Amino acid sequence: MNVSRRIIDLQASPIRRLAPYAREAVERGIKVHHLNIGQPDIKTPPHVIEAIKNYQEQLIAYGASEGRDDLRAALPHYYKKYGADVQAEEILITTGGSEALHFTFMTLCDHGDEVIIPEPFYTNVASFAHAVGVKLVPVTSRIEDNFALPPLSDFEARITDRSRAILICSPNNPTGYIYHSEELRALLDLCERHDLFLVVDEVYREFCYDNEAFVSVLTFERYADRVVCLDSFSKRFSMCGARVGAFVSRNKAVIANALKLAQARLCPPEIEQIAAHAALGTDDSYLVAVRDEYETRRDAIVAGLKGIEGVSVSSPKGAFYLVAELPVDDAEAFAIFMLRDFNLDGETVMVSPCENFYLTEGMGRRQVRIAYVLNTEDLARAVSCLKAGLEAYQAKTRSR
Amino acid sequence: MNVSRRIIDLQASPIRRLAPYAREAVERGIKVHHLNIGQPDIKTPPHVIEAIKNYQEQLIAYGASEGRDDLRAALPHYYKKYGADVQAEEILITTGGSEALHFTFMTLCDHGDEVIIPEPFYTNVASFAHAVGVKLVPVTSRIEDNFALPPLSDFEARITDRSRAILICSPNNPTGYIYHSEELRALLDLCERHDLFLVVDEVYREFCYDNEAFVSVLTFERYADRVVCLDSFSKRFSMCGARVGAFVSRNKAVIANALKLAQARLCPPEIEQIAAHAALGTDDSYLVAVRDEYETRRDAIVAGLKGIEGVSVSSPKGAFYLVAELPVDDAEAFAIFMLRDFNLDGETVMVSPCENFYLTEGMGRRQVRIAYVLNTEDLARAVSCLKAGLEAYQAKTRSR
Repeated sequence: MNVSRRIIDLQASPIRRLAPYAREAVERGIKVHHLNIGQPDIKTPPHVIEAIKNYQEQLIAYGASEGRDDLRAALPHYYKKYGADVQAEEILITTGGSEALHFTFMTLCDHGDEVIIPEPFYTNVASFAHAVGVKLVPVTSRIEDNFALPPLSDFEARITDRSRAILICSPNNPTGYIYHSEELRALLDLCERHDLFLVVDEVYREFCYDNEAFVSVLTFERYADRVVCLDSFSKRFSMCGARVGAFVSRNKAVIANALKLAQARLCPPEIEQIAAHAALGTDDSYLVAVRDEYETRRDAIVAGLKGIEGVSVSSPKGAFYLVAELPVDDAEAFAIFMLRDFNLDGETVMVSPCENFYLTEGMGRRQVRIAYVLNTEDLARAVSCLKAGLEAYQAKTRSR
Repeated sequence: MNVSRRIIDLQASPIRRLAPYAREAVERGIKVHHLNIGQPDIKTPPHVIEAIKNYQEQLIAYGASEGRDDLRAALPHYYKKYGADVQAEEILITTGGSEALHFTFMTLCDHGDEVIIPEPFYTNVASFAHAVGVKLVPVTSRIEDNFALPPLSDFEARITDRSRAILICSPNNPTGYIYHSEELRALLDLCERHDLFLVVDEVYREFCYDNEAFVSVLTFERYADRVVCLDSFSKRFSMCGARVGAFVSRNKAVIANALKLAQARLCPPEIEQIAAHAALGTDDSYLVAVRDEYETRRDAIVAGLKGIEGVSVSSPKGAFYLVAELPVDDAEAFAIFMLRDFNLDGETVMVSPCENFYLTEGMGRRQVRIAYVLNTEDLARAVSCLKAGLEAYQAKTRSR
């Protein structure tokens, strides 16, 4: 009695592999600073919680498969702030950004089709693609280039008759890179020449630092027909557990296709959509304050990491992640060491080894992703742990 | 620029095709009695709504991919009432029964594998299967047999080396049939002989009439390893818009496989799981009252339909659907006629043509599914409309 291979083949994420070590560390009384997950510690806007508490219905009935009308009607005003002209009917509400990703592969690709993606990338993208028979074809972006868009020729070299789309994430998880307007235009032009879609995951849109301008792919009118934008309320409003995202496209055939999938699963969560609708009414000052807080954290962690000998850090401009290259041969072994064999005055850190963020064999083995979702005080202690941990690890490996 | 064929090929459900006619009827001032959808009109238990209003968190954080611990820990007590011995770790909380269905096809089947299913069946099963490359192979159950389990030889004749599972729904949507203990045992035995899984959708478990005993597939200890049970809070507690369901299996490899999918999509909706947990504390009297109400409705609609000349009805024992055969050549044309060309004192009915509930060409063309989710007074008026509508339709078609 066999289960399907398509799922068995999915790699457990490195965080899942490390989880038992983290649990044991906690059981031994060690405080673990979690730099490994993108769970913000910032409070959800209070009026979002209030909207839940004010739930008025007596019968939680099925909603529309497209998502709640009020939410879909409100989103175009939000996108307008980014200069994008989107209509309600070009938006499908999804059960988190995750479902928007699933819809992308299902809607644009048949079994065996290919999507080109710069690596490193968010590991679950590979899970969703692989599960439905879509092959991800990586183009490597490099820490020494600050993870900027790789040369277009690298993309072009990977286009085959099965290629259907290029998928990027901006601001990027895990690199923090924000794609510039010219990079987006170059990609769109490439997509036009080769009849591909450009899919952009913009869930970290608000998290841009150093006054870096964020340019939404939705603003490129000329290419509107070949663009899909993935969105989510999770990070923006610190409401990850409320599974509300969006799948946006001005291509009618794409929306019609995705709608059929949406109809099959009936509707997104109703109550959490009410929360999401309330979230859209959040004063911009909340988002500015959150951004400023993350910018301060980014400055602290980057400065801290640069102070550790042998550590390379890119210059992350957005989201709340960065990729650091460590003076170790195997970042996963180091991450396990930090949890299993090390503590500094009863504290240690958990980081996410980067190998699974790459598809190219051997890439990322010395890299870790760091999510700076802790307050600056904890971040400083986490940096101290990393510094002392690296020294201890190097001493241990040298002595062998 | 093409979108994927795998979704384009999905048939729009008949209800979607009829929707524009229903809208136009309403615009003309006609009252449309909806016998077409499984949206209960019964109120959600008030303490479920209260649980939402009492939401205590200030940060809606990611939950566990498996589902909330409290909900998973509570479910075994619920299953115990049905004599099933299930552990929390054998349960994954899903985003509605829909996701449990998606997990089923993904977890048990590779692209090109087959699942055998009695027809008529819930149309979205075909959507989920088709979308991920699983072929549904139908075995026809018949109205003249009251839609009982077809002969085992019919199943056996359809088993190939790509067969992975048999999927049934009990109590059945759309037929209202409840599979007896002997039928389940015979199917399990067949599955054992041919190394297949038996998947049973039991979301209507509480809706059994005439003191008919419901037997859960989870009670067959000997076959525990080859059973998957799909569940949902939607119908049971009239909370369809809160997307909470469950995927249950005592086969560790199946759960491990499904968990990887669950991890890829991060977590089910947190707030609505809190509502579902509260729902498990509902006094049995609520479920008994709901069941009694539906039984009264079932009696009313069956008696009403039997009073219309030329209409055949099966004897539905559970869920809140029945399949009726009408004295028309094309039930969809009739359904459109009812919405577009007919009214009785300003009222009409919308029914669901059954052809899409079958895969075998030509089956179900004279049948409709009726959901008796209206109060008995409205049901009586709906029956009067149907009777008068059938006479008018027959007069019209004869006159051509």
